[in-house]
Amino acid sequence: MNLQTADAALIDDLVQHVGEEAVSIDPKVLLSNSHDFGKIVDHQLPLAVVFAERVEDVQATLRLASAAGVSVVPRGAGTGVSGGAHAVPRCIVLSLERMNRILEIRAEDEVAVVQPGVINAELNHAVAKHGLMYAPDPASYKVSTIGGNVATNAGGLRCAKYGVTTDSVLGLDVVLADGTLISTGRNTFKGVAGYDLTSLLVGSEGTLGVVVSATVRLRYLSAKTCSIAAVFTDVVQAAAGVMAIAGVRVQPAILELLDIGTMRVLDATYGSDLSARGGALLLVRTDGHGAEIEAGIVRSALENLGAQLSGAEDEEAVRLIEMRRASRGDGQDDKYRVGEDIAVPRSAMVEYMGTLDMIAARNHVMVRIVAHAGDGNLHPTFWVDPDDGSEGVARLDAALDESIRAALDVGGTITGEHGVGTVKREWLAWEQSAEVLELQRKIKAVFDPEGILNPGKAIL
Amino acid sequence: MNLQTADAALIDDLVQHVGEEAVSIDPKVLLSNSHDFGKIVDHQLPLAVVFAERVEDVQATLRLASAAGVSVVPRGAGTGVSGGAHAVPRCIVLSLERMNRILEIRAEDEVAVVQPGVINAELNHAVAKHGLMYAPDPASYKVSTIGGNVATNAGGLRCAKYGVTTDSVLGLDVVLADGTLISTGRNTFKGVAGYDLTSLLVGSEGTLGVVVSATVRLRYLSAKTCSIAAVFTDVVQAAAGVMAIAGVRVQPAILELLDIGTMRVLDATYGSDLSARGGALLLVRTDGHGAEIEAGIVRSALENLGAQLSGAEDEEAVRLIEMRRASRGDGQDDKYRVGEDIAVPRSAMVEYMGTLDMIAARNHVMVRIVAHAGDGNLHPTFWVDPDDGSEGVARLDAALDESIRAALDVGGTITGEHGVGTVKREWLAWEQSAEVLELQRKIKAVFDPEGILNPGKAIL
Repeated sequence: MNLQTADAALIDDLVQHVGEEAVSIDPKVLLSNSHDFGKIVDHQLPLAVVFAERVEDVQATLRLASAAGVSVVPRGAGTGVSGGAHAVPRCIVLSLERMNRILEIRAEDEVAVVQPGVINAELNHAVAKHGLMYAPDPASYKVSTIGGNVATNAGGLRCAKYGVTTDSVLGLDVVLADGTLISTGRNTFKGVAGYDLTSLLVGSEGTLGVVVSATVRLRYLSAKTCSIAAVFTDVVQAAAGVMAIAGVRVQPAILELLDIGTMRVLDATYGSDLSARGGALLLVRTDGHGAEIEAGIVRSALENLGAQLSGAEDEEAVRLIEMRRASRGDGQDDKYRVGEDIAVPRSAMVEYMGTLDMIAARNHVMVRIVAHAGDGNLHPTFWVDPDDGSEGVARLDAALDESIRAALDVGGTITGEHGVGTVKREWLAWEQSAEVLELQRKIKAVFDPEGILNPGKAIL
Repeated sequence: MNLQTADAALIDDLVQHVGEEAVSIDPKVLLSNSHDFGKIVDHQLPLAVVFAERVEDVQATLRLASAAGVSVVPRGAGTGVSGGAHAVPRCIVLSLERMNRILEIRAEDEVAVVQPGVINAELNHAVAKHGLMYAPDPASYKVSTIGGNVATNAGGLRCAKYGVTTDSVLGLDVVLADGTLISTGRNTFKGVAGYDLTSLLVGSEGTLGVVVSATVRLRYLSAKTCSIAAVFTDVVQAAAGVMAIAGVRVQPAILELLDIGTMRVLDATYGSDLSARGGALLLVRTDGHGAEIEAGIVRSALENLGAQLSGAEDEEAVRLIEMRRASRGDGQDDKYRVGEDIAVPRSAMVEYMGTLDMIAARNHVMVRIVAHAGDGNLHPTFWVDPDDGSEGVARLDAALDESIRAALDVGGTITGEHGVGTVKREWLAWEQSAEVLELQRKIKAVFDPEGILNPGKAIL
């Protein structure tokens, strides 16, 4: 039996086990499920896409793929930006988007149990009536799934105060490569029974197992929030504002820094006049019962630095925060434009932003920056004119490499919240030692001895 | 060469590599380093105690022990209560208490780097001058080490709001069983490069590696706190108070529930009159800039339930919280008295406390309860009269088993914050499936293929 016959037999088996409606080999479906929003270097089409509806479908898919030696690429909404959901050679894409039910909301326990295909915003909508929220809010929250958020350990705007995805995940149901279903973690806020397999699985980008349900901790939806927009002359002053807010010991729920380039994009998109008013913007939101007191303290601290503040009414600042949420939505990264995601110790932000400007100038590329400033997590976007062709791409790639080196030089990391995927894999060895890389390969082998689960992602 | 000669040779090698002052075979030292505060079933003495002063000492000890096939039991202050630091047959105890330097405080980044032997309270003292705190505060915080806190993923009173140890650990330097030094995690608040080995190591009780430094996140030391003591008629009412505080969406920094038995212990110890005033006590602390607003909201909510509240001045409530911190300090658990550590979904607390009373009555044992009520983490203490001898011990053991079963029956866990150690190991299989237990054994084998690191602890 040659390879193609074997693949056809696998697809027949899949149809038999998960049903005809759950398996697609439609070229359009294969194409649209073949990648996420990360830069594509080696585009591959899957043999088929399985749209799992039940845990058993996931188990059958993994069992059959294991037996056939075919790789499986799990997929949520495909909104990742690191290529974690890119198809690999000879693979099945396992879509979890139809497993989209909220299984349980235990409002008194501040816990929900959800299938992986539940959209982040839908979970938030469902728990809001109980005065609760699911805190992690990646920019994609209106379309991305909890399963994808778990796979990438997604961050977002609110994680300055409320932590990233792993801080909200209490337990997981996971199907291993051989089809075994396991439960990790717990139903309770605290628990230390055995190794923390839950945290190991969060952020593992589908390389260790496929999440089929997640037990998540909910937080209080604040009845009162206060929002402040502060315009500064430049990013150095805005970064001083970030440190000043820390200095007065206020932990904002949201603390975003936008440079002039990002302000210009907002102006062009929304007709605002931000870039005429200054050279950098801080967006701050306080929440909780002390929101107004905290906002007052933040306003004084920023005024002392000479910032121009939005009015005491929230309206303008709220509008800007909503604009900011959408400000990286320029579509898919490509070889001419790449959004980065490094994180640095917060006190190194100013220095690092200066370095980014120098790197951009040196390589004749453009750069603009937006930062989850409370966390020291920066998203520079580098781009060149597509007319510059391969010479421009070479300059862009050089600038990207230099920006990563520079982040590591100040004690940072190659990825704050987007994940390694395929896009950042080459840089992982710059951050981690050979021994640490080897440990991760061995852990991968414990969970997935045949290496069928999303090979070539997350680790090196 | 027989075993004893081999052991003597190992001790000679250790002396040669780490120095004479760092190795003790003094029987008194062996005895005092042979156990923690957990119940002792199979008391063992180590061959020697190594008091490491440098990373190289830890590496040499592990390398030599590996070569000799001798187990190594890492040890902080020995204040654990699950037997995680109990000596095992033919072992070296590796004490980290001399590695007690704070290596770095980066106040602007809200990060500290510490050696494992740093005492929790000393770190807090050192960072307080910067307006910062290290949040996890186990009852042992005045004497326990950060290394031990990391090994057990220690909780404490403040973790209702600020999370447990794993939520404050950003990165670790760890020596593996073969002496290899690795670094996991990062210097930054956020980071998702590769698998989360840091969280895997936190709470692994020294079975995967020996922590030689930890990079921890610090939090804001609140300039203002408000403390409230609320006396209720019984624990049912006090638990209703816990739910009422959640209902008004206040997240206290501390939220402790004490039953009548615990109140009597406090009265006997401190000459207070708590047990004359009611049948259960809630201790609440709010902090942050909104502390007074939140305290006002909490006071109204509890008054509505008929609680007797401490005065608006904090004095009495502060004193009670300090008393509570010390209220489990009856010394080491033994076969006649055992402190438990289960966690349940918070809404199940009342039902579970009733079940504990029934279990105690049925088995003719005494029980009193104190709970980190915000987290649903209960510490019942069960005891029998030592005069009852082995028959009493049998009743005590039966009650313990039943209390664990009952916690699992309501969706809880066998250990909220103390760890599995040796004491809770037999119960692990009640909570975790054979597949999950097997995964953990395989992960252990990745880090420690010869199985020399703290064997017989943490996992089954």
